[in-house]
Amino acid sequence: MTVYLDHAATTPLRPEAREAWLAASAQTGNASSIHRAGQNAKRMLAEARERLAAVLDCDAVEVVFTSGGTESINTALKGLWWARPAGAGRIALPDGEHHATLEVADWLHRQEGADVTAVPLDHVGRILPDAFAAALAGPAAAPAGSRPAAPVRGGSPAAAPSGPRSAAAVATALVANNEVGTINDAAALAQTAAAARVPLHLDAVAAFGHVPMSFRQWRADAAGPVGLVALSVSAHKIGGPVGVGALVVSRAATPTPLLQGGGQQRGLRPGTQDVAGACAFAVAAELAAAERAAEAVRLVALRDRLVRGIHATVPDATLLGDPTDRLPGNAHVLFAGALGETLLFVLDRADVCASTGSACQAGIPEPSHVVAAMGRTDAEARQVLRFTLGRTSTDADVDEVLAALPAAVARARAAAPR
Amino acid sequence: MTVYLDHAATTPLRPEAREAWLAASAQTGNASSIHRAGQNAKRMLAEARERLAAVLDCDAVEVVFTSGGTESINTALKGLWWARPAGAGRIALPDGEHHATLEVADWLHRQEGADVTAVPLDHVGRILPDAFAAALAGPAAAPAGSRPAAPVRGGSPAAAPSGPRSAAAVATALVANNEVGTINDAAALAQTAAAARVPLHLDAVAAFGHVPMSFRQWRADAAGPVGLVALSVSAHKIGGPVGVGALVVSRAATPTPLLQGGGQQRGLRPGTQDVAGACAFAVAAELAAAERAAEAVRLVALRDRLVRGIHATVPDATLLGDPTDRLPGNAHVLFAGALGETLLFVLDRADVCASTGSACQAGIPEPSHVVAAMGRTDAEARQVLRFTLGRTSTDADVDEVLAALPAAVARARAAAPR
Repeated sequence: MTVYLDHAATTPLRPEAREAWLAASAQTGNASSIHRAGQNAKRMLAEARERLAAVLDCDAVEVVFTSGGTESINTALKGLWWARPAGAGRIALPDGEHHATLEVADWLHRQEGADVTAVPLDHVGRILPDAFAAALAGPAAAPAGSRPAAPVRGGSPAAAPSGPRSAAAVATALVANNEVGTINDAAALAQTAAAARVPLHLDAVAAFGHVPMSFRQWRADAAGPVGLVALSVSAHKIGGPVGVGALVVSRAATPTPLLQGGGQQRGLRPGTQDVAGACAFAVAAELAAAERAAEAVRLVALRDRLVRGIHATVPDATLLGDPTDRLPGNAHVLFAGALGETLLFVLDRADVCASTGSACQAGIPEPSHVVAAMGRTDAEARQVLRFTLGRTSTDADVDEVLAALPAAVARARAAAPR
Repeated sequence: MTVYLDHAATTPLRPEAREAWLAASAQTGNASSIHRAGQNAKRMLAEARERLAAVLDCDAVEVVFTSGGTESINTALKGLWWARPAGAGRIALPDGEHHATLEVADWLHRQEGADVTAVPLDHVGRILPDAFAAALAGPAAAPAGSRPAAPVRGGSPAAAPSGPRSAAAVATALVANNEVGTINDAAALAQTAAAARVPLHLDAVAAFGHVPMSFRQWRADAAGPVGLVALSVSAHKIGGPVGVGALVVSRAATPTPLLQGGGQQRGLRPGTQDVAGACAFAVAAELAAAERAAEAVRLVALRDRLVRGIHATVPDATLLGDPTDRLPGNAHVLFAGALGETLLFVLDRADVCASTGSACQAGIPEPSHVVAAMGRTDAEARQVLRFTLGRTSTDADVDEVLAALPAAVARARAAAPR
């Protein structure tokens, strides 16, 4: 029996979400059609939207369904960039963001001339509040609605801005780091953005279902299209189906749409709407929210037993990230002298699924940019393993990984290049 | 029992596609993960890709899964535009394209300074081959790979280009018109594009499953990133799930990705891949292809009986579009003196679901741009109704709509404003 400890990559579909998908997909109708079949689909979609909005504590009209986290992040960052006020030409980008966010920022830099201001992390992977505030500070941007400045193609690289810097057009931040699990103070970051009058996108893909979340409270009394204006979530991270996500977009914000087509969803995300996916997502979100507090207690106990066991059997292993203020199911461990990739392969042969936590694209292992941003060496950033527990994780899973780990670490250390 | 004659809007999920979705979604694993759960997901995805490629007659690596037709069209047109060679600055756009295509072209014009060259239709809604060739002709573009020209913001409107026109950067065409059902000669259009050395996107969303389709044959012996390079399809139009689509992208083409993130799918479409959706799509596509010839005969017979019945009971009704070379299930009818919207409402009360065929966004009825492009008046473009039959359509459905139609037309005519 496979021990699956990679719930952060994707977690099993909840039976109730599967049932909701089946029930909705049994009813034929395009939610944009005027006839009764269409209106029926439209009603189901509206109900799903309201239920998801209740979980996220936002208005139903603020929920924009997407195909997942990557699309949500692209829609938020590019949309806010394209709709930026005159004089705004920078993106505030914390060092440990998800690859999708980093790649979008890089695209905006290369394609649109955006300057990127990096925001450093502390040694547990938390965004430094003062550095975040400093990155947002700058000359005031002209009021939204004025014509955007023509993008500077081939603009100066982030590290060496030429001349006085422009106002921040958009800021982004993870609610919780998807690799090391450290939780940021989202409310404080949103407050900083509101005070600096900069629109903020929060990437809540990893945090959703694990961290109490209120779009309304985090946005607080920000006025106009500044402060918290957009928040990304994904269904398959909480037991909904893959291929479904949402972007919460504040009523106050009018990002430029990434896709053009019909006028669905305030024009922000056209295309025939995936009613069954939305229904399944809403059901998964409600269950995740209802179970969250009790499940957090259970997962923390399980995770802490895993961490204690690792320390007992591999004494020089180091837990990275905040020791307590972290995602409940996340154990991110540095095994000095062992390549994470090798460990992953060896454990896989022992039927244990974990992750290096880094994007390993096309099979080329890369050091974790998050671990590097925490002040660790490049070598250390290659020696980490992420275990993420979830809804189906049990004591037996922890027993099995603890039984397999010492030999796996020994083998990986023996195999490591000098 | 509702008579559903709007299969072009969306058609019932096939039981076999539902089973494929269920089977795949019961297995947890992110196809980008290295461990066995991830590799299992990756294998399922690869198999789905191969099966869909076999139906479309392209290479598996050319299939890029998306969230649906709108995303496919956006990815193709914007991606080819951004990757255009120096000196290319125009889009060749037939008048009767789907709203998603029209809106993308409009965005490229407004946001990127693209010039748009319209291509007229004939009176049955077919793209005029000579006009298409003329729209593609122009000065030769510099070889692909050279730096794109800086887009001209606020470029001259399509109708009144200032100065000599630039080379066509991209052309697009419907394989079959989604409103009136007329089938274009895709192979000839692709040949024209190859001869003019312009990259062509074909929108096959409405045609897929109804028209014999071979990406390889249509691309023929085009060399390099010209001729047919991209083709859009959607799952829910052929009995697959909503929220899943694909863009076939020729090996020879390297459009700029619309989304940034992980390196999935040749970097052309990042994001956690929807394995269950892909599996369900592949199964639906195989069934649609296997049944196509026999189902076309059945639907044409049913559709022709519907059209004969309409002529018998509403003698002045006019079938629009090509009388024979059209999508098998499509009957697009002009009811002079009756507003399509009103007809739709009255028929809906009689439990018959049809469509005006036009995008009716936010409840504001608009004349069909396709019917207008066929040389009809604006008034006529508001007096059309589209019936589309599909896999679940029966003789009884035709009987019921024929029974309801005369009274419905009479009521709609009586209600029409003078």
